Amino acid sequence: MAGDKKFVEAITSMEDDFAQWYTDVVKKAELIDYSSVKGCMIIKPAGYAIWENIQKELDDRFKETGVENVYMPMFIPESLLQKEKDHVEGFAPEVAWVTQGGLETLPERLCVRPTSETLFCDYYANCVESYRDLPKLSNQWCSVVRWEKETRPFLRSREFLWQEGHTAHATAQEAEERTIQMLNLYADFLENVMAIPVIKGRKTDKEKFAGAVATYTVEALMHDGKALQSGTSHNFGDGFAKAFDIKYTDKDNQLKYVHQTSWGMTTRLIGAMIMVHGDNRGLVIPPKIAPTQVAIIPIMQKKEGVLEATAELKNVLSNFRVKVDDSDKSPGWKFSEQEMRGIPVRIEIGPKDIEAKQCVVVRRDTSEKEVVSLDAVEKKVGEILDRMQVEMLERARKHRDSHTTTALTYEEFKDAIANKPGFVKAMWCGDEACEIKIKEETTATSRCMPFEQENLSDKCVCCGKPAKAMVYWGKAY
Amino acid sequence: MAGDKKFVEAITSMEDDFAQWYTDVVKKAELIDYSSVKGCMIIKPAGYAIWENIQKELDDRFKETGVENVYMPMFIPESLLQKEKDHVEGFAPEVAWVTQGGLETLPERLCVRPTSETLFCDYYANCVESYRDLPKLSNQWCSVVRWEKETRPFLRSREFLWQEGHTAHATAQEAEERTIQMLNLYADFLENVMAIPVIKGRKTDKEKFAGAVATYTVEALMHDGKALQSGTSHNFGDGFAKAFDIKYTDKDNQLKYVHQTSWGMTTRLIGAMIMVHGDNRGLVIPPKIAPTQVAIIPIMQKKEGVLEATAELKNVLSNFRVKVDDSDKSPGWKFSEQEMRGIPVRIEIGPKDIEAKQCVVVRRDTSEKEVVSLDAVEKKVGEILDRMQVEMLERARKHRDSHTTTALTYEEFKDAIANKPGFVKAMWCGDEACEIKIKEETTATSRCMPFEQENLSDKCVCCGKPAKAMVYWGKAY
Repeated sequence: MAGDKKFVEAITSMEDDFAQWYTDVVKKAELIDYSSVKGCMIIKPAGYAIWENIQKELDDRFKETGVENVYMPMFIPESLLQKEKDHVEGFAPEVAWVTQGGLETLPERLCVRPTSETLFCDYYANCVESYRDLPKLSNQWCSVVRWEKETRPFLRSREFLWQEGHTAHATAQEAEERTIQMLNLYADFLENVMAIPVIKGRKTDKEKFAGAVATYTVEALMHDGKALQSGTSHNFGDGFAKAFDIKYTDKDNQLKYVHQTSWGMTTRLIGAMIMVHGDNRGLVIPPKIAPTQVAIIPIMQKKEGVLEATAELKNVLSNFRVKVDDSDKSPGWKFSEQEMRGIPVRIEIGPKDIEAKQCVVVRRDTSEKEVVSLDAVEKKVGEILDRMQVEMLERARKHRDSHTTTALTYEEFKDAIANKPGFVKAMWCGDEACEIKIKEETTATSRCMPFEQENLSDKCVCCGKPAKAMVYWGKAY
Repeated sequence: MAGDKKFVEAITSMEDDFAQWYTDVVKKAELIDYSSVKGCMIIKPAGYAIWENIQKELDDRFKETGVENVYMPMFIPESLLQKEKDHVEGFAPEVAWVTQGGLETLPERLCVRPTSETLFCDYYANCVESYRDLPKLSNQWCSVVRWEKETRPFLRSREFLWQEGHTAHATAQEAEERTIQMLNLYADFLENVMAIPVIKGRKTDKEKFAGAVATYTVEALMHDGKALQSGTSHNFGDGFAKAFDIKYTDKDNQLKYVHQTSWGMTTRLIGAMIMVHGDNRGLVIPPKIAPTQVAIIPIMQKKEGVLEATAELKNVLSNFRVKVDDSDKSPGWKFSEQEMRGIPVRIEIGPKDIEAKQCVVVRRDTSEKEVVSLDAVEKKVGEILDRMQVEMLERARKHRDSHTTTALTYEEFKDAIANKPGFVKAMWCGDEACEIKIKEETTATSRCMPFEQENLSDKCVCCGKPAKAMVYWGKAY
């Protein structure tokens, strides 16, 4: 059946061309479509359903820590954006400007939010008076715009969806604790829901967020050995508070500045999921986040009793997210589609199976195939989904660890970046000049100074001066 | 206790000044805040939590009918907006234009979406090929921008949140059925969840959506007798399909145009809820949509055992959405706050109650107060919430019906619009000239031609020519 291969044949192998493989997967798995708006993507049902599951998981976790959702305007007046110096310098070159409303030219340009620190600061300046009003723990789900030149689906687009949390606290310590709390929440979500292992650490000053005192990050390694910044959490100290005059009266009756944080995750996570778990047959979605966990595909579905047995099987599996594909395509075609879409488990059931009171259960990531008695199928599917979730994380961790090199000399470093795709661990003196030199000569950037520091040597891998920290380096998306 | 009255004193009575009462409620109930972006509002946690409940209820209902969520870009190139003639004429005067991206002037202006018909059409033109691809049933949750001159929180703002459904069908009949199906879904949601009774009907050609063949609407009556369009569902026929060339190959192998619909509801619903149910003590939220259904307020909370009993009571009521207010404000202050915020049920519990194994349960809308045994409190609260939900709808329906006048002559009509706040039912000849005359002379607009037609007389209330339909008229937000 030639048609059965439609999906498989059309996809480039990741070993041949990883970038093309990625593009093929996002298109063939029907996650996105290109739009006639340059640099902006259409997120199709299969892609958006993954984002909805990500949202639900994160939103529940945020709310458990006391965070409340709000909605801020999508426009920022130019004068408001300019209030914090570093921030405006970081963002102004890449924003979209609204200059006309209706038939009139606006008296002041408005930028479409690239992020909303300035709006939240303006809001907090109005509504924070006393220590009783603190902490403010807010989040919003929205889209933001950054006028990128080069775009790639999910990874870098002119508009993307995200959440941005913004908090204000009475003390510096509380703000630092919240920054780390949210980073840990992100790491836990990535590892236990998305099955993506991460390195937690702090960004160097060069790589930190515009206006932040400290930026913390969770860094993941993609299948091709490139790094992807997967979530960031920023401690602003009182810098924004001073720029926006956000003060509160403390218990001691003194006026003090608040201390702030912000933290965000984006639709980029879907890109990470594809590049960590996908294979040459398409997407592989971790069971916990999969919109459909089980695809039931009837065999010889026109034979008497097959569709009835399929429907019954769906009922038995009602604890899972199940879809039956009883379209008029051939089973082979349906298998390819289910694999391309990354549905964790496929169940095949035909007349012979029904007679033998069994079905065939196939696991997406390993292609393991088992004949399972219909009496035992609910338990079995649960076990497979649980095991798959755990093993996907383990596999990704093994890949990450086997693609992490230690470099003690600059020669080793350059060799690793050029020839060994993955993270390179190396010591650093703390001087931005070395970061710049490394980036210019190798294209690698500092990903983070991990919380779990190792003392690889006493010397900076680049300049040989005394080392201050171990840094993860890598080429990055 | 003077402080206790903070909330109550600050609010204008609705009989004195309904508009000011409304503004006071949205501010004092902490639903919104004004932003430094003219015409755009900040939706605060208490307001956004209501929107989240509205979203959840509607989204579940949409999905039950096979609708899938997607996300389209927020920008529309000017050339794309111009493809459907009526549509661009309707929207172009009130959109915001992005003319600069980063440091460059864009080759083509992009409007910030006022609605996304053109984007969905562009998408469907690319992905619909065969009858097998139909129907397309899509929805998105997003914000849209319309450059309004006069704005009011929730009712009319330059940016608002909404859902917009967009479907494409093989036949005209299927499109009409979907249009009515979604209108009925909206009506059911408004009546059974928001406790807002509605008139379902069709808009006149003058009032229909730019580009639609037919617009259907659910119209609600506010407490002050003004109408509020609360949701619309549009049948586009094949007009957009022809403008965007959206064709499919039918079973008979002929190329045919699709038939389309769109339908939307917005954060305006929160405004409707305030103006239908609110009173001079503030907001009254229908139990099914209330973020907090029960507020427990301990009395003499520093006495031994009070906070423990409060916590236990919260546990007993774990089937409901419950908050305990154990802040250091006085009970009277807390009562006022709970009333201002519209929380459906308040429970007071103090040392004497604990001794007598009872508590005091107060219903927000009627102020009914009952002493309830702690053993019976869970059942009782459930009954009160159920009854309150039903009675809020009944009360609103009685108000609506007692504020609906029948006018047989133009004198009666003018008198009713001038002196009897509410809907006016009157016959109409179908001529737009009469609609225009009525609007100019009375400020009333045609709200809809209700599905439940009555033959009040044979003559148009305005011109006396033969009547074609009974119309609901009214002043509107």
